[in-house]
Amino acid sequence: MAEKIWGGRFQESPTAAVEAFTASIGYDIRLAPADIKLSKAHATMLCSCGLLSADETVDLHQVLGEAETSLKNGTFLIDPALEDIHMHLEVFLTRRLGDTGRKIHTGRSRNDQVATAFRIWCRDHIDVLTLNLTTLQKALVCCAERHQGAIIPAYTHWQRAQPMVASQHFLAHVERLDRDRQRLRDTRSRVNLLPLGSAAAVGSSLPLNRELVAELLDFDGVCTNSLDATSDRDFALDFAYNLMMIAQHLASMAEEWIMWSTTEFDFVQLPDRFCTGSSIMPQKKNPDVLELIRGRTGRAVGALMQLITTVKGLPLGYQRDLQEDKIPLFTSYDSVSESVTLLAALVDEMELKDASIQKSIHRGYLDATSVMEFLIEQGTPMRVAHEKVGKLVHAAESAGGSVVTLNDLPLSVLETIDPLLATPQASLAMGADHAARRLRSQGGGGHQSVANQIKVWNDRLSL
Amino acid sequence: MAEKIWGGRFQESPTAAVEAFTASIGYDIRLAPADIKLSKAHATMLCSCGLLSADETVDLHQVLGEAETSLKNGTFLIDPALEDIHMHLEVFLTRRLGDTGRKIHTGRSRNDQVATAFRIWCRDHIDVLTLNLTTLQKALVCCAERHQGAIIPAYTHWQRAQPMVASQHFLAHVERLDRDRQRLRDTRSRVNLLPLGSAAAVGSSLPLNRELVAELLDFDGVCTNSLDATSDRDFALDFAYNLMMIAQHLASMAEEWIMWSTTEFDFVQLPDRFCTGSSIMPQKKNPDVLELIRGRTGRAVGALMQLITTVKGLPLGYQRDLQEDKIPLFTSYDSVSESVTLLAALVDEMELKDASIQKSIHRGYLDATSVMEFLIEQGTPMRVAHEKVGKLVHAAESAGGSVVTLNDLPLSVLETIDPLLATPQASLAMGADHAARRLRSQGGGGHQSVANQIKVWNDRLSL
Amino acid sequence: MAEKIWGGRFQESPTAAVEAFTASIGYDIRLAPADIKLSKAHATMLCSCGLLSADETVDLHQVLGEAETSLKNGTFLIDPALEDIHMHLEVFLTRRLGDTGRKIHTGRSRNDQVATAFRIWCRDHIDVLTLNLTTLQKALVCCAERHQGAIIPAYTHWQRAQPMVASQHFLAHVERLDRDRQRLRDTRSRVNLLPLGSAAAVGSSLPLNRELVAELLDFDGVCTNSLDATSDRDFALDFAYNLMMIAQHLASMAEEWIMWSTTEFDFVQLPDRFCTGSSIMPQKKNPDVLELIRGRTGRAVGALMQLITTVKGLPLGYQRDLQEDKIPLFTSYDSVSESVTLLAALVDEMELKDASIQKSIHRGYLDATSVMEFLIEQGTPMRVAHEKVGKLVHAAESAGGSVVTLNDLPLSVLETIDPLLATPQASLAMGADHAARRLRSQGGGGHQSVANQIKVWNDRLSL
Amino acid sequence: MAEKIWGGRFQESPTAAVEAFTASIGYDIRLAPADIKLSKAHATMLCSCGLLSADETVDLHQVLGEAETSLKNGTFLIDPALEDIHMHLEVFLTRRLGDTGRKIHTGRSRNDQVATAFRIWCRDHIDVLTLNLTTLQKALVCCAERHQGAIIPAYTHWQRAQPMVASQHFLAHVERLDRDRQRLRDTRSRVNLLPLGSAAAVGSSLPLNRELVAELLDFDGVCTNSLDATSDRDFALDFAYNLMMIAQHLASMAEEWIMWSTTEFDFVQLPDRFCTGSSIMPQKKNPDVLELIRGRTGRAVGALMQLITTVKGLPLGYQRDLQEDKIPLFTSYDSVSESVTLLAALVDEMELKDASIQKSIHRGYLDATSVMEFLIEQGTPMRVAHEKVGKLVHAAESAGGSVVTLNDLPLSVLETIDPLLATPQASLAMGADHAARRLRSQGGGGHQSVANQIKVWNDRLSL
Repeated sequence: MAEKIWGGRFQESPTAAVEAFTASIGYDIRLAPADIKLSKAHATMLCSCGLLSADETVDLHQVLGEAETSLKNGTFLIDPALEDIHMHLEVFLTRRLGDTGRKIHTGRSRNDQVATAFRIWCRDHIDVLTLNLTTLQKALVCCAERHQGAIIPAYTHWQRAQPMVASQHFLAHVERLDRDRQRLRDTRSRVNLLPLGSAAAVGSSLPLNRELVAELLDFDGVCTNSLDATSDRDFALDFAYNLMMIAQHLASMAEEWIMWSTTEFDFVQLPDRFCTGSSIMPQKKNPDVLELIRGRTGRAVGALMQLITTVKGLPLGYQRDLQEDKIPLFTSYDSVSESVTLLAALVDEMELKDASIQKSIHRGYLDATSVMEFLIEQGTPMRVAHEKVGKLVHAAESAGGSVVTLNDLPLSVLETIDPLLATPQASLAMGADHAARRLRSQGGGGHQSVANQIKVWNDRLSL
Repeated sequence: MAEKIWGGRFQESPTAAVEAFTASIGYDIRLAPADIKLSKAHATMLCSCGLLSADETVDLHQVLGEAETSLKNGTFLIDPALEDIHMHLEVFLTRRLGDTGRKIHTGRSRNDQVATAFRIWCRDHIDVLTLNLTTLQKALVCCAERHQGAIIPAYTHWQRAQPMVASQHFLAHVERLDRDRQRLRDTRSRVNLLPLGSAAAVGSSLPLNRELVAELLDFDGVCTNSLDATSDRDFALDFAYNLMMIAQHLASMAEEWIMWSTTEFDFVQLPDRFCTGSSIMPQKKNPDVLELIRGRTGRAVGALMQLITTVKGLPLGYQRDLQEDKIPLFTSYDSVSESVTLLAALVDEMELKDASIQKSIHRGYLDATSVMEFLIEQGTPMRVAHEKVGKLVHAAESAGGSVVTLNDLPLSVLETIDPLLATPQASLAMGADHAARRLRSQGGGGHQSVANQIKVWNDRLSL
Repeated sequence: MAEKIWGGRFQESPTAAVEAFTASIGYDIRLAPADIKLSKAHATMLCSCGLLSADETVDLHQVLGEAETSLKNGTFLIDPALEDIHMHLEVFLTRRLGDTGRKIHTGRSRNDQVATAFRIWCRDHIDVLTLNLTTLQKALVCCAERHQGAIIPAYTHWQRAQPMVASQHFLAHVERLDRDRQRLRDTRSRVNLLPLGSAAAVGSSLPLNRELVAELLDFDGVCTNSLDATSDRDFALDFAYNLMMIAQHLASMAEEWIMWSTTEFDFVQLPDRFCTGSSIMPQKKNPDVLELIRGRTGRAVGALMQLITTVKGLPLGYQRDLQEDKIPLFTSYDSVSESVTLLAALVDEMELKDASIQKSIHRGYLDATSVMEFLIEQGTPMRVAHEKVGKLVHAAESAGGSVVTLNDLPLSVLETIDPLLATPQASLAMGADHAARRLRSQGGGGHQSVANQIKVWNDRLSL
Repeated sequence: MAEKIWGGRFQESPTAAVEAFTASIGYDIRLAPADIKLSKAHATMLCSCGLLSADETVDLHQVLGEAETSLKNGTFLIDPALEDIHMHLEVFLTRRLGDTGRKIHTGRSRNDQVATAFRIWCRDHIDVLTLNLTTLQKALVCCAERHQGAIIPAYTHWQRAQPMVASQHFLAHVERLDRDRQRLRDTRSRVNLLPLGSAAAVGSSLPLNRELVAELLDFDGVCTNSLDATSDRDFALDFAYNLMMIAQHLASMAEEWIMWSTTEFDFVQLPDRFCTGSSIMPQKKNPDVLELIRGRTGRAVGALMQLITTVKGLPLGYQRDLQEDKIPLFTSYDSVSESVTLLAALVDEMELKDASIQKSIHRGYLDATSVMEFLIEQGTPMRVAHEKVGKLVHAAESAGGSVVTLNDLPLSVLETIDPLLATPQASLAMGADHAARRLRSQGGGGHQSVANQIKVWNDRLSL
């Protein structure tokens, strides 16, 4: 049983079925660049400790570089019997360098090695994703800027609530994505610590220099307990959770824009190239990209739940269950990352159908709160004002016919409910445009607030 | 925009990024055999309704057969721009048969087509999995049969509870798997109904014969509401739930056998070929296969959660989100199915280390309940008997030294607690072997019950 | 340590904090009726085996009846130190009956007892829920019957697809609920098996008669392996899964009706008494009940995930973790059950706003598929017909102005695309009403199919 | 319909069933202290803007104080028809102060109000939990300190791996809890921003001063977009995720200590008062507290999944679904918080059974890696050394009889495999004690590393 590098004590090799079942090379090949990087740093450190000669170290760096090239060329040979990317690289070195290759695993275990390679992968992809999120934020801010002139209804409970400057909608999504970036940053601070040097579980009796490796690999520091370092997968769950939250935020945009592009809302016309048709209904144009983005929330939630389930009830120390950490994170990252990119392209071309929106802006009594706040300013207690405007709405609804907005009501009705409502000032609080124009609180949907927000984001994102 | 078969009304094709994002051909190619089968049946039906001529029908069957061959040969061309397996097959037909190919989609939509193909896939894989579960059950029954002579501790709370015939353990797992088979059978009854003929959502104005198609495809009947039929994914969730439960049951075996193979328990020696070693610790032999089976519970849970999340809040009628139904089910099926097969092989070779087990069988007062039940039989009220044996245990624990079992206690101590305990009959209730031998309730861990269970299973599984 | 009935071997009682942490009496009191019922049956059985005298048995039945009354009156004393409902009832018996009470636990353990009581609870609540689901189905069938005259758009991707008889929508939901009832029935068949007599894990050395108890408690049979019987919680997960699926189906109704009650859709006016208002916006009427039903899907999913997580990785035999099985099931049942009942009341009063719906029925080219199928009937290959109608739609969209439906197009345009489109027969395929009238496939949204479905359901639900 | 404060436009009140279904007062009463605090701050701000007089403000503060007292006394009246805690408090004010009470809701909506109260609750409970986690960390560091003298096996895959100082185990858990505290701190930074002033969705036309309220309520700043602020529940999911991670970490301790307290491991004797007994088996002492802590992971996972499911697919703006945010967080917090506290008490009394551990420390070849590293130091390439020690282990295993450790092997065998192994220096690498003593890498399980870690934690936690 000389084939397995751990096989000294074994009488029998795994069967092919067992090999196939336990092998991770099919997916952990994505860790190859990270694993090569860490092996180079590890070799440099072993040299500095006297465990490798300078010549051996140069040779190892050289052949690790060849492995990298071979992987890029697609000429790197994959053999399921070699289990994982770590074994593949070690065998690659040993075949070319003999005993020098047999030294690369000095003072390390796959337990601390895979944890390190996976952390490098996570860190680097957190960085890429952060950039992509920023691109999407910028697209949304631009879109908000383009739509400063438009008034749209704000909805709560999908019922028409109050009018607002359309930009407020896009800026709300910028906020959400900003929290996503913050969460990634928080996760990164816990990802970017070095497990290497923890060996199998309890460290090593060899004179390793972990700080040096951390420095060479741009880690912020070293993990401070070897038993924890080799079994910790908090960072993978944290990243999976972050991805899930991004997916939720994207799904929320998708949901709302799918509704906006119905015949009934008719707020937006999605560009043809983000839509597909029906195999049977010739007239259909479906918002497929948005639906898939929404549907893919499932992938990110599923990935998180997979990780949560896998780690549940595991003791300290490496358990083979932990091998199941990579697929869900790869899957979730790919899915979310693609969605972010595609959505940025879609937002770039998003145009609200202003004419269509304005045609129905008078519906739903969007100005009711404005009128109530006018009464409050005149000294009416809030709850009394609420009751009066409630009656106003009821009167308008009962009137039917041509009365559809509050200012359609005859003065006599307004006066009966409250003489203040029949004044010219009151009429300046009525109508969606007036109501929107009166909004003045910080962070609200009024013109000034929206302009301020756009300015702040332009400053913050123009990195 | 002639390229897309739904493109008549479109001014612009999807971009490559959008095509890549929306395409499902990368995975729904697994539905090809089912899709070919259903297209053949659909053509036969269209012919019977006069919507295809006999010649056209023969041609379509012929070329669908060629597509099948081409798929098997690996010569079938994949083009992401063609979105899914349905489009690929339709274009395959049209390229070879012209207008005849253009007729295959008569009276159907991809909405009812994909639902039908997916149900065929589910049905067929439920059947395969049911067989594999039966194989695992048989392996467990054999294992139970091999171990009828051994007495092992039953544990509750991982604390030693009472002695039992070892077979009882393996038979308990047979029960669990039997419920899994029942659940699959229940799911199958809801899977095996035909959506085809529901078209996009509301059926068709063409004179389709759905019953004929159902018969040709071995469905038990037709779905009775077109709107439901095209959006129903209950069957996918049911199957995913069934798979998750199987995964839980496998994980439970794995958990227990991982503990049994520790140095501390030393109940079982797993065959070398189901284990792997450590890259750093030369002495290690790890139960990797069992750990991965346990860890993969996460895959099955994740897949279920993915589906649950995706369907949450969707209205009736097909939504593109539903395209996300296939990957989780494929993934979960593959994972669970591999685990079932591998576990059957492992169980085939499973041998308890009887000598090691017997060495510690006297520990943990496994006979305490037996002694208590002896007192009850003598007329002592149960709760009084419980209290007395509790004192007995406390006396043994306090004695220390050579007193480790209840019958190690001096007669004087036994007599003080209850004279009945100092009788010869009492001593026949003491000791793990005696205690196991006295078990006689139906379904219990005694010799007769275990023999009965083995007989019943041998009959039911018709070994 | 005489206070705990299991305390014979203990030197020290749990602290109050530990007692509070481990006690389940706060919620398992809901099992009291089931536990009393099973204790009566258990006593009867013990009597039949000679382990209780006839007098003792009568006394136990008598005092168990008093416990029942005391629980109903609210005079039953709860003491956290007594842990669970089982201990409370045993102590209740012992305080009143002395040694006779001390015999009730003969041949049983809390492990098989709680499993039995919980199964009785599940069975009985499956039965109640099944009835409530039937009530909701009936309400939907009535609603379908009321709306046979109305034509509404069917949507896919929330885009207008084809016209259908409105009833088809309500009948689709009846289908879903029927699968829910089937699932409950399947679960019931696995719930209704008796664990009692399995004792702690391996059965008993006493001459118990399990079949008798099964008969007395209306179980369909006995669990056939004691180790499985005491640790099996499949039934709880199955029930939780069933509840989750019901919740999903209710959420789907809620989602759609929330959209239907927007100003934009305006398909339905929800009765005031199923809505609430806004604390600040006087005009608001929000579909709160529907939103909460949708939001509560989370409860049912959360409960399922709680159970899945808890059982993951547990070995055979009772583990205390399993105590966590009850709260999620109680919570999910209460939530889903309330939603079902409230929804039935809402559906009873549901009226579509026909005038409003008809005002926009001409929008979205609902007749496009109908026209395509007309061409197919005339011999045009399906894919060619699809292309032609696609062009028709494009022409109509481009025309703008007064052209909004396909029959608004000038004959010259129709003729250019295909002369068949300019015929009088073609015009009979145009318009939503015509298109709906032509639907004739089994299970489709046409008049005849809908009438058939209503008849079938009326028979099956025996209104 | 004067009863509902939003009822001006309504013709009909909700039915009792609808009221019961929609009411949240049953659980949001836990927000009362936060809601009172925010109403005081809101009143102060309204006064500063001229929307309340100084007298009115004093009155409101006064009566809010009375409400607080009344809540503490249990004399506060609950009425389901008043829906939630916000309505209860407003009505409390109005009943006592008339028009002044009717002014408290000026410039605010329940949408921004509940978000603010819930954030205050989260912030305050994050702070309490952080303290409790610190207490548990301190208990673990003390425990590590007590066990610096003991050598125990480190396990990977539950197989004996290498020896380590026992403290390393407890310190690994301290690391995990530290990440939990970091995550809570990160979440707090996003929790502690003020939504109030966002009103229903778009802010207000009144001259509110949001910065003042933020300052009065100790918020770090204000939420910068009203639409986001009223619908954002990221903070609730973040907190739920943090709680779930803590639960996972506690479950991992529980899992390991449950195994340690088996008869087979016998590493630890849990204090009687953290255990309970069996109703049937008199000898049992079960680690119930640990099992329940492990089982309750389900609660925290379920709560997280509930929130994830509920928010999936919601648009911007308040939806009533969001009312479902509180129960899962309350439940999860209570559960995790109790577990943390109980575990700290248990750790305080935790004593390893050193004698029992030492009795088996020679098993499992814990020194194999030490011997391999000795060979590496002598210049043997790592992979060659691994192979040689593998053979050593195989030789020892095959020898059987009295040979159970590597130094039991006859010198001749050692020499055959490698003469270096037969040297006196080699024997200093053999045996668990020697092997542990040689560990010297940073963060490893050796004496120096463990002492360093304890020092660092004592410094960091003695805040």
